[in-house]
Amino acid sequence: MTRYKLIIQYRGNNFHGSQFQPNLRTVQGELNKAISTLTNQDVTTIFSGRTDSGVHAKEQVVHFDLNNPIILKKFLFSLNCVLPDDIQALRIVVAPKGFHSQMSAKFRHYQFKIRNSKFPKIFEMGVFHHPYPLNCERMNEAIHYLVGTHDFSAFKSVSENPAKICEIYEAKVSSKGSLFKIDIVGNRFLYNMVRTIVGTLLMIEKDNLPPSAMRDILNSKDRKLAGPVANSNGLFLLKVGYNSKNRKAQ
Amino acid sequence: MTRYKLIIQYRGNNFHGSQFQPNLRTVQGELNKAISTLTNQDVTTIFSGRTDSGVHAKEQVVHFDLNNPIILKKFLFSLNCVLPDDIQALRIVVAPKGFHSQMSAKFRHYQFKIRNSKFPKIFEMGVFHHPYPLNCERMNEAIHYLVGTHDFSAFKSVSENPAKICEIYEAKVSSKGSLFKIDIVGNRFLYNMVRTIVGTLLMIEKDNLPPSAMRDILNSKDRKLAGPVANSNGLFLLKVGYNSKNRKAQ
Repeated sequence: MTRYKLIIQYRGNNFHGSQFQPNLRTVQGELNKAISTLTNQDVTTIFSGRTDSGVHAKEQVVHFDLNNPIILKKFLFSLNCVLPDDIQALRIVVAPKGFHSQMSAKFRHYQFKIRNSKFPKIFEMGVFHHPYPLNCERMNEAIHYLVGTHDFSAFKSVSENPAKICEIYEAKVSSKGSLFKIDIVGNRFLYNMVRTIVGTLLMIEKDNLPPSAMRDILNSKDRKLAGPVANSNGLFLLKVGYNSKNRKAQ
Repeated sequence: MTRYKLIIQYRGNNFHGSQFQPNLRTVQGELNKAISTLTNQDVTTIFSGRTDSGVHAKEQVVHFDLNNPIILKKFLFSLNCVLPDDIQALRIVVAPKGFHSQMSAKFRHYQFKIRNSKFPKIFEMGVFHHPYPLNCERMNEAIHYLVGTHDFSAFKSVSENPAKICEIYEAKVSSKGSLFKIDIVGNRFLYNMVRTIVGTLLMIEKDNLPPSAMRDILNSKDRKLAGPVANSNGLFLLKVGYNSKNRKAQ
């Protein structure tokens, strides 16, 4: 039996999230089906982590095991021929010894894109439109309070498991014209955590709170003080890293 | 009564074309509804020309008449607040005397975009994916045979009206990396004509015909010799011009 490490990208709009659910269209469900069809074997892929309904991925990492050998280049091409239009396989390699897409991951890099203009750009996709003024410098100062190892209970979702400690390696906000990018790199993320951080940044701006409000909300561990969960359409899983040395946002 | 000239853009995917049809979602239907709501008057907009189901517009020109005066800037803002997400009003002016969005138009500029790569780019929209090799120079030579005043019966759709004579001012194919752009500027276009021209270009490439096949197909006036109608998703109405001096593709 051989384990393979597969990098895929997907457009989240028409999936009920990445994680398999019976009778719903999910990224994992479609990928399992495609690989099982190609290999004549009942294959279950393991994702580095789940992404919510509507969230996109530029480089999601997946592993799976096969009994019979495959020719990697040919397999990749065939896989893309059977996958639906909104999932694409980018690279495949034989996984290093002991590799596990989720357990071996050292960091995840998420990016949230915002178009900060009076009206949206109707021909762009994967960008959340926000018409109220945003100040990049203030947002960058606010998000920086999250860097480090903290209890992120204030940004958890209701149904979250008990372990709330995450380490954030990098968190920054940058802008170019009316396009804002929020980059967060961490060892792990709670369910809805990135989108709740974005919603809190937008709330701080809208209510004209000082950037340090982010620190106070974090320290409160009180979900009621944080902002709403931002729209999934602006969120991308950019990268999953297995080497802690290059865990800075690109 | 005052006539207004309004420039709009729209994403064609979720419309049954631009032209009003009862009980179907159309660009004209949505625009009539929005303007009528704002003005408390039953308004019918007149488009410079119809675009098919799925076709996008970067600058479609529309006119309509109102009984009561409006403040242009305020009206434009309010209109964008009531229009759906896939239509956007860009500019509005009081129309010049005698202006008619369709009759006064001197040229229409259409552009068709093709991603010529093994697999599509899943995060781009409004681009048709074509995996078979294309030669920009040959395509450019082929399309150039269409410039001038011709009977375009070979590129008509079945239900076309009898007048088949169109004047094409410019027709060119350009490429940058794997992105191909086909630009056509003309005084008028038959129903499905641009997409049939694109389908014919792709057919010429696929069947390895000489570029002059385009001239032979044009001269035959036989629809059966032309290629299939290309997918609507790659097609944009880029501009409608009312001054013949600047009718070159940008």
